[in-house]
Amino acid sequence: MLARSSAAVARDKLARRMPSVPVVLPQHRYAVHIEPNALDRLGGVIREVAPASSAALFADPAVRGTLLPRARASLESAGYEVIEHALPGGEASKTLDGVRALYEVLLSRRFERRSPIVALGGGVTGDMVGFAAATYLRGVPFVQCPTTLLAMVDSSVGGKVGVNVPQGKNLIGAFHQPAVVVADILALRTLPARELACGLAECIKHAVIRDPSLFAWTRANLRALLALDADALTELVARNVAIKAAVVSEDERETGVRAHLNFGHTFAHAIEAVVGYGEILHGEAVALGMLAATTLAISAGLCAPELRGELEAVVAAAGLPVRARLPDDARLLEAMALDKKVSRARIRFVLPTRLGEVQLRDDLEPRAVTAAWASIRL
Amino acid sequence: MLARSSAAVARDKLARRMPSVPVVLPQHRYAVHIEPNALDRLGGVIREVAPASSAALFADPAVRGTLLPRARASLESAGYEVIEHALPGGEASKTLDGVRALYEVLLSRRFERRSPIVALGGGVTGDMVGFAAATYLRGVPFVQCPTTLLAMVDSSVGGKVGVNVPQGKNLIGAFHQPAVVVADILALRTLPARELACGLAECIKHAVIRDPSLFAWTRANLRALLALDADALTELVARNVAIKAAVVSEDERETGVRAHLNFGHTFAHAIEAVVGYGEILHGEAVALGMLAATTLAISAGLCAPELRGELEAVVAAAGLPVRARLPDDARLLEAMALDKKVSRARIRFVLPTRLGEVQLRDDLEPRAVTAAWASIRL
Repeated sequence: MLARSSAAVARDKLARRMPSVPVVLPQHRYAVHIEPNALDRLGGVIREVAPASSAALFADPAVRGTLLPRARASLESAGYEVIEHALPGGEASKTLDGVRALYEVLLSRRFERRSPIVALGGGVTGDMVGFAAATYLRGVPFVQCPTTLLAMVDSSVGGKVGVNVPQGKNLIGAFHQPAVVVADILALRTLPARELACGLAECIKHAVIRDPSLFAWTRANLRALLALDADALTELVARNVAIKAAVVSEDERETGVRAHLNFGHTFAHAIEAVVGYGEILHGEAVALGMLAATTLAISAGLCAPELRGELEAVVAAAGLPVRARLPDDARLLEAMALDKKVSRARIRFVLPTRLGEVQLRDDLEPRAVTAAWASIRL
Repeated sequence: MLARSSAAVARDKLARRMPSVPVVLPQHRYAVHIEPNALDRLGGVIREVAPASSAALFADPAVRGTLLPRARASLESAGYEVIEHALPGGEASKTLDGVRALYEVLLSRRFERRSPIVALGGGVTGDMVGFAAATYLRGVPFVQCPTTLLAMVDSSVGGKVGVNVPQGKNLIGAFHQPAVVVADILALRTLPARELACGLAECIKHAVIRDPSLFAWTRANLRALLALDADALTELVARNVAIKAAVVSEDERETGVRAHLNFGHTFAHAIEAVVGYGEILHGEAVALGMLAATTLAISAGLCAPELRGELEAVVAAAGLPVRARLPDDARLLEAMALDKKVSRARIRFVLPTRLGEVQLRDDLEPRAVTAAWASIRL
């Protein structure tokens, strides 16, 4: 085969222009493009994977100012008729009723099965729009354009989509892998400092579960990252997406190693449930959860006591909380018990054994869990 | 490996006792067990594929009398704690609100990720319960126990689940393959004659698209089938499930050959939308749709004119309608245009070329489509 298709040539050219991290799954493969100004290439990138006459662009209100018009212009210049719709925004809007509102937009425009749905915003936007894309006409092509650090390094990669119900977070959802992910590093320039810190929490998590060198790099580059240096942020996102992609490639449906990504999350979900979504941000809860889990690991004799201090130092330097006002233990344990990660009524924890390595454990003493909670209580 | 696990031995024993048709997909394989009294083995069959402490049993009200207690008893004797819930029943109940009611039952019982959800009933039950199973905790094991002929030969196999919205049927949904399917042939003994005929419509459809010998067999055995002969019904279900399984194996997500199963359905979905769900049953609409599609095929020069007469004779003998009161053409065309099978705004038809063979066509003259509608209008 000497002759190559023009589409293949165009794809190669695109790949040379824009650095990307591949996510390889048994039945699907997609790219995560990470670059300053990546949004300006959005339309062309999507046309490679989901050619169609229309595209739906669902955006968080936080990005209406500059990112939304740029994304729209790029889609239009690539030939898409754009169905634009602004989401209400906020974790409290990530509900079944929110998804239903998206269905109404799509149905009223007779949106077709091969047309792509683009989510422009943070994790809330990606989760809810992704669930609509997973279930409208039994699934249509889905494009993630994460605009927060948290969404870039975590929720936009891996295909988990869903909504909250009063009983808990993400309890209704699906696995629906994106067709492509486009992360514009410059979007982070307008991100509130508190949300940047939340993204750093998931980066620290990746480092603890998989990559001691990333832990050291993050600690060493924290000042540049907090100062929004584009090169440092690009490297941070690329390294973290590579970790997330590797874990998801090994275990798309979370039957095994993907559970490692839940380090800190058994505590975090309970914190969010009892403190209230919005009062505390997800990344903040994860930071607290990682500290509690590390305390638990130490009390179970799984890791050296020094790890807690190292972790707390980076967490604090990233601007994340190390303690919080929490309700009594009974309510916390109750909240943990409804978390999805519960298997056969036992609460399962992801616990560090050393930097870069974690273990799943479901045999922890209630006393040790209570002590772990106490270690992060104000 | 001389030693074999006791689970493997038990599975083989079970396979010898109960005839089954395998459904083989790239990432999943499951069995469709077809037998009189198959429900009595339900619990043991499920334990092979979804061992857990609890099982949810969601049932159509039509099966409350005898089938539900038998299914429950079998689950309990296999060690499951059973969470039983009766559905409202009827196509009009297959809505997002209906699914939400199922979520509430599952959430209130803290139903876990590995526990199976069993749908006992017809297609409406399987579709709606299946969608709940696909989306609760991002997907839990799902067991289909079809109790109508239509559900046994069609909707219970292949993983399509979903609900209706005011704009159309099954427009919200997912692909969620069952862990196992258990079809108790004796359930058909209590099925209303009109619903048995609806199942025969899908069987005739399978024969037309794939299997001339099944077409001849069905015509020859129609009397025994309508008299509810258990052997004839078992053979009918097994042969039709094998066809459905083969098509689904080739094309799980309906990107190609699976579209052949939509023979008659472009018309049928429009009929149901305009006549009203419940006024006309799905199988009746499919019977009419197959006749209209065959008229269309003849006018496009795709098949011999004799096929229309052969098909109409079998349809009529099965107790299915060959004409219906229909609204004007404008409304019918409008209803067809919203159907999911629309690709890039062209209406796509599955048209027979001869018995056992169909073609996809999206280039039909509006005049020919109007004439096809006229051929089934009372």
